[in-house]
Amino acid sequence: MTATLALTGSMLIGAADVRGRGKEIRGVDPATGQELEPGYGLGDESDVDRAVSLAWQAFPVYRATSLRARSAFLATVADNIDALGDTLVARVVAETGIPAPRVRGELARTTNQLRLFASVVADGRFLGARLDTPDPDRTPLPKPDLRQRKVPLGPVAVFSASNFPLAFSVAGGDTASALAAGAPVVVKAHSAHPGTSELVGRAIRAAVQAHDLPEGVFSLLFGDGRGLGTALVKHPRIAAVGFTGSRSGGLALVAAAQSRPVPIPVYAEMSSVNPVILLPGALASSGASLGTEFVASLTTSAGQLCTNPGLVFALGDPTGFLAAAGEAVKAAPGAAMLNTAIHKSYVAGFTRLVDAAGVTEVAVGGTDDAIAACGQAGLFVTDGDTFLAEHALQEEVFGAASLVVRVRDLAQLERILDTLEGQLTATVHADESDHDTVAALLPRLELLAGRVLYGGWPTGVEVGHAVVHGGPFPATSTPATTSVGTLAIERWQRPVSYQNVPDALLPEELRDGNPLGIPRLRDGAAE
Amino acid sequence: MTATLALTGSMLIGAADVRGRGKEIRGVDPATGQELEPGYGLGDESDVDRAVSLAWQAFPVYRATSLRARSAFLATVADNIDALGDTLVARVVAETGIPAPRVRGELARTTNQLRLFASVVADGRFLGARLDTPDPDRTPLPKPDLRQRKVPLGPVAVFSASNFPLAFSVAGGDTASALAAGAPVVVKAHSAHPGTSELVGRAIRAAVQAHDLPEGVFSLLFGDGRGLGTALVKHPRIAAVGFTGSRSGGLALVAAAQSRPVPIPVYAEMSSVNPVILLPGALASSGASLGTEFVASLTTSAGQLCTNPGLVFALGDPTGFLAAAGEAVKAAPGAAMLNTAIHKSYVAGFTRLVDAAGVTEVAVGGTDDAIAACGQAGLFVTDGDTFLAEHALQEEVFGAASLVVRVRDLAQLERILDTLEGQLTATVHADESDHDTVAALLPRLELLAGRVLYGGWPTGVEVGHAVVHGGPFPATSTPATTSVGTLAIERWQRPVSYQNVPDALLPEELRDGNPLGIPRLRDGAAE
Repeated sequence: MTATLALTGSMLIGAADVRGRGKEIRGVDPATGQELEPGYGLGDESDVDRAVSLAWQAFPVYRATSLRARSAFLATVADNIDALGDTLVARVVAETGIPAPRVRGELARTTNQLRLFASVVADGRFLGARLDTPDPDRTPLPKPDLRQRKVPLGPVAVFSASNFPLAFSVAGGDTASALAAGAPVVVKAHSAHPGTSELVGRAIRAAVQAHDLPEGVFSLLFGDGRGLGTALVKHPRIAAVGFTGSRSGGLALVAAAQSRPVPIPVYAEMSSVNPVILLPGALASSGASLGTEFVASLTTSAGQLCTNPGLVFALGDPTGFLAAAGEAVKAAPGAAMLNTAIHKSYVAGFTRLVDAAGVTEVAVGGTDDAIAACGQAGLFVTDGDTFLAEHALQEEVFGAASLVVRVRDLAQLERILDTLEGQLTATVHADESDHDTVAALLPRLELLAGRVLYGGWPTGVEVGHAVVHGGPFPATSTPATTSVGTLAIERWQRPVSYQNVPDALLPEELRDGNPLGIPRLRDGAAE
Repeated sequence: MTATLALTGSMLIGAADVRGRGKEIRGVDPATGQELEPGYGLGDESDVDRAVSLAWQAFPVYRATSLRARSAFLATVADNIDALGDTLVARVVAETGIPAPRVRGELARTTNQLRLFASVVADGRFLGARLDTPDPDRTPLPKPDLRQRKVPLGPVAVFSASNFPLAFSVAGGDTASALAAGAPVVVKAHSAHPGTSELVGRAIRAAVQAHDLPEGVFSLLFGDGRGLGTALVKHPRIAAVGFTGSRSGGLALVAAAQSRPVPIPVYAEMSSVNPVILLPGALASSGASLGTEFVASLTTSAGQLCTNPGLVFALGDPTGFLAAAGEAVKAAPGAAMLNTAIHKSYVAGFTRLVDAAGVTEVAVGGTDDAIAACGQAGLFVTDGDTFLAEHALQEEVFGAASLVVRVRDLAQLERILDTLEGQLTATVHADESDHDTVAALLPRLELLAGRVLYGGWPTGVEVGHAVVHGGPFPATSTPATTSVGTLAIERWQRPVSYQNVPDALLPEELRDGNPLGIPRLRDGAAE
């Protein structure tokens, strides 16, 4: 397949390759600072209109595909991406500096995720079919025949993330779940990995064509976030938006979506510092090993993960933890960050910690002059009073820097938890002797975060049915949703009720006798 | 019980009766224009803060109640309201002019709804419990133990509706579903029925006390929408808002909620004209009877229902329909509207139809000088070209006025459907000969509305598991939800995932062996 995959620098608008007429951008190898071929011309509003109009045309056909056909399509998308193999891995490495082994893992996660949604579609539970038994003889009024199922909202705009060039980008969780729901997708590629985006986009397009689906089921655009991105969100035929990225970027899209004549939902996954709580028993029994494990999590992907543990609260004596963590940080080599903008912002955040009153440096990691955008790990420590007095200390520093807070007692920890903003994750490390404390903390942690971990580290999100990758604002703009896992499909759906519609005219999934054999509720219970 | 129910004119803030220090308001009998005792002092921001602070204090205790205890509490609320009986019915009639038989029906619907949510709570499916089987031996990384359930968002603010003083007010669907989810509720009463609100509020408070729940589980405030209402939405401890009412009122709350440092969801059910489509076969075979039935639906509750059929599209010859509908409208007596503000706004909308170019009056109903705020039914007719040219013709006229549009052909009907705003309902009347047309129209109708009816009329919403009372903007601010039926509970919930949490520390509903015996998913399938 590799031979046919020469990159063209074009957007993919339905079946057409369209060269953007705006400024040209190129991928940049963050390790060397070298620009990569080809150049990509940025698109404009007319490209948005063309892509969304095709998506709107495709919508009635695509959403009417059978569960089997749609499931097979998603499986083909996965197969096509897997078939890119080393070609894709090499391009991701070149554009992002992410080490090849992690890219391979992310590639497997991405295609497994597509196959998981293929199975969700085939199963049919996501349709939320509900039937209420009518009663024509009820007085004073007959009870109608009501049946309910979910329909897709309409064409979806997906904004790719910088830090997951595969799993949260062109064929990532937003795209996979929207396609599964029956919604055509228009992706705005992230400008930091245009070649990766084109490769994956072509794999999706090939699947659209192989399954004889309307070309508008998928388009890929390159463009400026403020210009093309805003035009995409404001297009009247776009029904919902998925986004993973910075708080400022997410909030700008939310504002654009709300200023439309018809506002639409934006599912933005934004920022999180992922607090980790170390309880006295755990610190005493395994402080040193926790310190080492912690730094492994902190420095994964140069700390550029939304679930990176950026805040640690130590209740009890952290001496052993800090000593081991400090050693591990010192031993951490400098690592290429995703791009120069992220590197610059990381250096600023790092410096803020260095300069903060009442905050002490525990250790800093290595650096490497041969790497252009080199991120240096850093570990800092402060006390609970200082943390409570300075709100800025809970701001995310996107990269491998973390702050350990020595907490005086449980009351202070609870006060701190009350001041924290919403989070993607909250982790507690405990041994048996800490269990009463854990029991007291869990109700607070579950109101703070979308995922609560006992032991382990927040990095590494398992894709499945029971996962939540979401959480209260500002972790996400819509706390009742998740952007990872099968529940993510609900973001693109809306329930519709059918009253007294004759069987032959009903959607198949609601007909008498359940011809599709999908899970349904009858009068509130499993049928 | 009646003897103990003297109205006091107080707000109910937790267990305390609090007299608002603001302007005094009174209920007004819309039939006579007479003011009703007692006066109610309006509250201010300090009352909001007291009520919400109590709700916040109550939250951890209330959300931790067992399913059985919470279910029993909801049933007691229903019993207490039923026990008010004729005292309540008489007060509703006096404050709203709604005829006693409809009030009795609404009372039954309100308490049935509370009992339905009591059964939903007892069943436990609403918790959305999901478990993924771990695999400690998986390589390269072990698969964690992930379990998910939904938790309530936090204290909820509910804004009462004018037109359903029971079913969409103090103990209406928003309150019932929020209490069921485990969220304390602070209600802002509608100023048009303060006495009704106090009676129902005391019934809820008595249930809170009978079940030894924290007083903050329920409070009832009186106040100005702009002042007290905005303060309620902006209070940092309010987590979500339910509203039924006008478009301008709903959008003002949405804007207030979005301007908070931490934005929160507003579930606003706003405006809908509920298009009814009459197909040629149905018009030919039963035009006259449809005309009579239509006017019965149109004039129910003086047309003051969010599902009132305000627009009719006739494809085919509507002569018989119009003749019968015209007769029925002429025979419709004038009816007391809910209050003078609604009456004034109805007269303005009615006049707009009378004056609209290309719109002809078919018939107007009777009027009654003895009724102060008397609504007069009205039926108007136009053609498809005029309708397409004048967007204002699709604006809601809240009351018993409707517009019949003669549509040239199916293509014009489809063009019209494309221009319509989102709706709560869409209805099609057809006979067998129309079924191909129905099949072609249904996919459009389900994207237009939350509930699609085949035959019948949109007024009269059945409360059950499969109903949707919602729909695309501006029918609601959040199209993926319903404000009626058991799915309404999801508006107040958020999923949380628990990773590797020891069994003894997990919420009971997620423990091994399913000790609560609730419906759960294991690896995506029913356990």
